[in-house]
Amino acid sequence: MSTPTTRRVSAEQQAREADLVETVVASFDHAPDERYREVMQSLVRHLHAFIRDVRLTEAEWQRAVEFLTAVGRITDDRRQEFVLLSDVLGASMQTVAVNNEASANATEATVFGPFFVRDAPLIEQGGDIAGDGAGEPCWVEGTVTDTTGRPVAGARLEVWEADEDGFYDVQYGDDRVAGRAHLYSGPDGSYRFWGLTPTPYPIPDDGPVGSLLAAAGRSPYRASHLHFMVTAPGCRTLVTHIFVRGDELLDRDSVFGVKESLILDFARHEASERTPDDRDLGGRTWSSTRFDIVLAPAAV
Amino acid sequence: MSTPTTRRVSAEQQAREADLVETVVASFDHAPDERYREVMQSLVRHLHAFIRDVRLTEAEWQRAVEFLTAVGRITDDRRQEFVLLSDVLGASMQTVAVNNEASANATEATVFGPFFVRDAPLIEQGGDIAGDGAGEPCWVEGTVTDTTGRPVAGARLEVWEADEDGFYDVQYGDDRVAGRAHLYSGPDGSYRFWGLTPTPYPIPDDGPVGSLLAAAGRSPYRASHLHFMVTAPGCRTLVTHIFVRGDELLDRDSVFGVKESLILDFARHEASERTPDDRDLGGRTWSSTRFDIVLAPAAV
Repeated sequence: MSTPTTRRVSAEQQAREADLVETVVASFDHAPDERYREVMQSLVRHLHAFIRDVRLTEAEWQRAVEFLTAVGRITDDRRQEFVLLSDVLGASMQTVAVNNEASANATEATVFGPFFVRDAPLIEQGGDIAGDGAGEPCWVEGTVTDTTGRPVAGARLEVWEADEDGFYDVQYGDDRVAGRAHLYSGPDGSYRFWGLTPTPYPIPDDGPVGSLLAAAGRSPYRASHLHFMVTAPGCRTLVTHIFVRGDELLDRDSVFGVKESLILDFARHEASERTPDDRDLGGRTWSSTRFDIVLAPAAV
Repeated sequence: MSTPTTRRVSAEQQAREADLVETVVASFDHAPDERYREVMQSLVRHLHAFIRDVRLTEAEWQRAVEFLTAVGRITDDRRQEFVLLSDVLGASMQTVAVNNEASANATEATVFGPFFVRDAPLIEQGGDIAGDGAGEPCWVEGTVTDTTGRPVAGARLEVWEADEDGFYDVQYGDDRVAGRAHLYSGPDGSYRFWGLTPTPYPIPDDGPVGSLLAAAGRSPYRASHLHFMVTAPGCRTLVTHIFVRGDELLDRDSVFGVKESLILDFARHEASERTPDDRDLGGRTWSSTRFDIVLAPAAV
């Protein structure tokens, strides 16, 4: 990662800078917690390597301080701009990657996001998660199995998504519960529910992270998706999304959450077409998809 | 910087993680400002290398978010915890190093710190910067020359320091002006003033940066010092400190500001000893030091 700039720096100067790195690293030598020491010493090395590689100017350092100060100022109980920052730098997704190594044919993980809520309503198989959320109905069905193909009965599936206006229920500031629920897989591992056809939406972009995206020439939009968190005894918890094949945002998701294996076909259905559970949708078009979930074994 | 952990990661997994890095880097490819692109792409590479090297856990990522949120919460117009964080990670000092390469025999730079104030009082040669600040009088004298040894007349010297209780005037929350002033070098480049014998003090350690230092087993104390900022036409601005030889904190300054060349002998004087300018110190002991300043030429 050395740049042409770096190579013009004299050997004496490079040695002086390297000495400083070692001094700072050594200042963590006596941290009582071994893991804290390891993490902080690596952080120091990478932070200093960054400053040296780009030959960070004092004015740029000042701007970085001002940027982080602005991120802190806009963050409160309802908005977490540091998480957004981590998301748009791909740090959240890289952390997911590091902690969810591919395990045989197990379903891949992606970012958790800030919109999960505990204690979402329980629905029966075939129930509707939409609540008061507006949007086109979407039938989702599939199975939960382990990596050997055995059905996982009684797996808990948490599902949540934005409405057709691109907002999660918690973003409205009232107490509505919509577009979220939990259900359990049946004895054969199967599950099915009515959700909403996922639509794209922008992450909050009126703060410093929005300015970062603008300076980068990047869109704040996320590819359309529906969140899953699946837990079952003996299995690794799976946090993931499903994405919609054909969505034009798949290759520029603002938080880098898309994985090829998570892009599904969503079939389009006319209002006149019979639904899987004979439900009357009041003359609306609908969509459907199949998501077969494979859970990795829990870490030994 | 690879760890044993890293080496256990499969080649496929490593490739997947490396692909994500390239995807995030590429998301900045179209940033209109070339320098912004360079800085952000390097930041992304180093940030991801850190996450991968330490195999950052999701719980650790969460703690990092909470830590930065706390840094943001305590930061206001009077307290800049992000600067403190940069300081204790050596990032401030590395930025100083990168921007102030050694130039022949020129005096070395160190951190600016958060306590400089514009428009500090003007004093005459031999004047007193202490104001109402309490502490032992310290006579400081020297010359300002360029790197060829020619005197620099009319150089502006800003000097500032903490009082004997370890506080700068601006930390008291009243409107006092103490322990700071500016003066000009004479026709022969010489300068002299009365200050206070520098004393050690802790950086503010009741916030998240204090917790970081505690977890690292590090002291919040700064080695005793007196700040200088010296400006003159045709010369590179020098921001530096002088340190006191024998101070036991020299090898563990909390912000890594100490450089060997900036450690000076401070002579100790009995109350009965005659002062350089025959000033009556009211029966107090005093100290004295000599700091000859060499300014690098301004960048061409």
